[in-house]
Amino acid sequence: MKRFFQKTLVIALLFICTHAPTAMADDPLPSWNSGPSKDAIVRFVKSVSAEGSAQFVAPSARIAVFDNDGTLWAEQPMYFQLAFALDRVRTLAPEHPEWKDRQPFKAAIEGDLKTVMAGGEHALLELVMATHAGNTVAEFSQAVENWLATARHPKTGRPYTAMVYQPMLELLDYLRANGFKNYIVSGGGIEFMRVFTEDVYGIPPEQVVGSSIKTKFEFRDGKPVLVRLPEIHFIDDKAGKPVGINQHIGRRPIAAFGNSDGDLRMLQWVAAGSGARFCLYVHHTDAEREWAYDRNSSIGGLDKGLDEAGRNGWTIVDMKHDWRRIFPK
Amino acid sequence: MKRFFQKTLVIALLFICTHAPTAMADDPLPSWNSGPSKDAIVRFVKSVSAEGSAQFVAPSARIAVFDNDGTLWAEQPMYFQLAFALDRVRTLAPEHPEWKDRQPFKAAIEGDLKTVMAGGEHALLELVMATHAGNTVAEFSQAVENWLATARHPKTGRPYTAMVYQPMLELLDYLRANGFKNYIVSGGGIEFMRVFTEDVYGIPPEQVVGSSIKTKFEFRDGKPVLVRLPEIHFIDDKAGKPVGINQHIGRRPIAAFGNSDGDLRMLQWVAAGSGARFCLYVHHTDAEREWAYDRNSSIGGLDKGLDEAGRNGWTIVDMKHDWRRIFPK
Repeated sequence: MKRFFQKTLVIALLFICTHAPTAMADDPLPSWNSGPSKDAIVRFVKSVSAEGSAQFVAPSARIAVFDNDGTLWAEQPMYFQLAFALDRVRTLAPEHPEWKDRQPFKAAIEGDLKTVMAGGEHALLELVMATHAGNTVAEFSQAVENWLATARHPKTGRPYTAMVYQPMLELLDYLRANGFKNYIVSGGGIEFMRVFTEDVYGIPPEQVVGSSIKTKFEFRDGKPVLVRLPEIHFIDDKAGKPVGINQHIGRRPIAAFGNSDGDLRMLQWVAAGSGARFCLYVHHTDAEREWAYDRNSSIGGLDKGLDEAGRNGWTIVDMKHDWRRIFPK
Repeated sequence: MKRFFQKTLVIALLFICTHAPTAMADDPLPSWNSGPSKDAIVRFVKSVSAEGSAQFVAPSARIAVFDNDGTLWAEQPMYFQLAFALDRVRTLAPEHPEWKDRQPFKAAIEGDLKTVMAGGEHALLELVMATHAGNTVAEFSQAVENWLATARHPKTGRPYTAMVYQPMLELLDYLRANGFKNYIVSGGGIEFMRVFTEDVYGIPPEQVVGSSIKTKFEFRDGKPVLVRLPEIHFIDDKAGKPVGINQHIGRRPIAAFGNSDGDLRMLQWVAAGSGARFCLYVHHTDAEREWAYDRNSSIGGLDKGLDEAGRNGWTIVDMKHDWRRIFPK
């Protein structure tokens, strides 16, 4: 009897002490329908994390990188950070009377997205600099936080942070439970994303890689601050993604998740390493529950990447068929 | 009796399962002599990590930043990375016959450090670019690894990685055992340091912040590579240190360790946060076992920082008296 109690206790305590996958629910990916995508994910994770597996990877090297826009949260009808920039133009407009006669600010104030977009990259850059620079890092974070708390998606009426993909949240959890360190590697602003990634994705600020403007250390009222300058520091997109990964992580991840041609260089970089590798594209195929777009989309276009994924046997998630639900309840 | 066994078992298993400081040897800092520096470190660590402490800090926010040269390893008679650059000029010289008539290369080949240094920052930059750029990230890492395996310190004859400070290695371990995440934030090259920081300090590549040159993604023989360009990307020194911290970590550390005026902005940035803070300067006071230098040294000068540390009650390590031993056995 004594032995029985001891044994039960040992098992119970080991259960509490370890974070092995056995401690998770039976299906760690309940929002994924059965099929080749889900199978490929589970097969890969088991192959690198099971002791004694021929493809075993030490936990410290289990690094996974995720694009954000269109991969972890939606990106239609416009990148959410652009929605923030447009809203912020309206917020700041009273301090800038000159904006009401000057493009692209006039169009932004009037909510005329078409004219804003017609201005091309130059117009967007001008909007970003006017709305993202000139304040301190702490002030900017506060502005993003305030916006996220009140802004609503134009189609669903949800907060933007509720426009994340439930199956991807489960995937992040599943990887973490198997010893992975998840990073975001996005073309979006690093300081914009860091405001919500820990709460929403469980990804702390130091695991976020993104585009950035320059900052400058100075003293204001005797206190050190970091001031955001209207100057590009780094664009973390396309061929910039492997550069950003190397800069921040300093070693090659073993798994990469994206949804557009902007992620192709990242997936190629990850795929080219030795040992077990996993590359996955989220393909937006669900016009009803989300959006359907790929080769010809101006946002999140997926053309060359789709061909390359096919050639290399990367996993292509068919959102409509592979995902039981899209957004969290 | 059964209860006694259960209780013993519970205690034994909890001991194994937790990584509490109680699981360490009695003195986690055996190379530190008793005194105010050691007391201040232990007091701070206990105050932020003990449950129920008024100054308790959640483990995820227990971030400590360390300068490298002169703080974790020695920096005399020249920065070790400069020794690497000079050795590499000699290694590459056969491919560059033009160097033997051109300064600063001629002086570097002849081992004439005085002439190299007389060329000032411009000469050093030229040497760094010629020896650090033009190859891929993987090739550069290999070159550093080869150098570290064979190069010896001119005074002690030790490998450079054996010129680390034993008391600081214990401090890194002590912090880690108490839930801290340790980062290096150094003016040294990020790719240079990453080659040895995990083995030597237990600090993985993703927790290294440093100066960098630009890199470019391209294909060579159908394989993606990152090529190192002869162009500065970021200088992680002085006011650049808080900028680098913000860029890589994205939140303010609670403890900072340095040894020179180059670290002052980092220490000020950390000190200006709210809640418990710890700032420490290593003061090189031991001419016999290491080197003695501060206000007037051209390498690792500590002048304004020493005054500021005194004013703010930061911990100043007196190497000669506070450290029982300097280098590992």
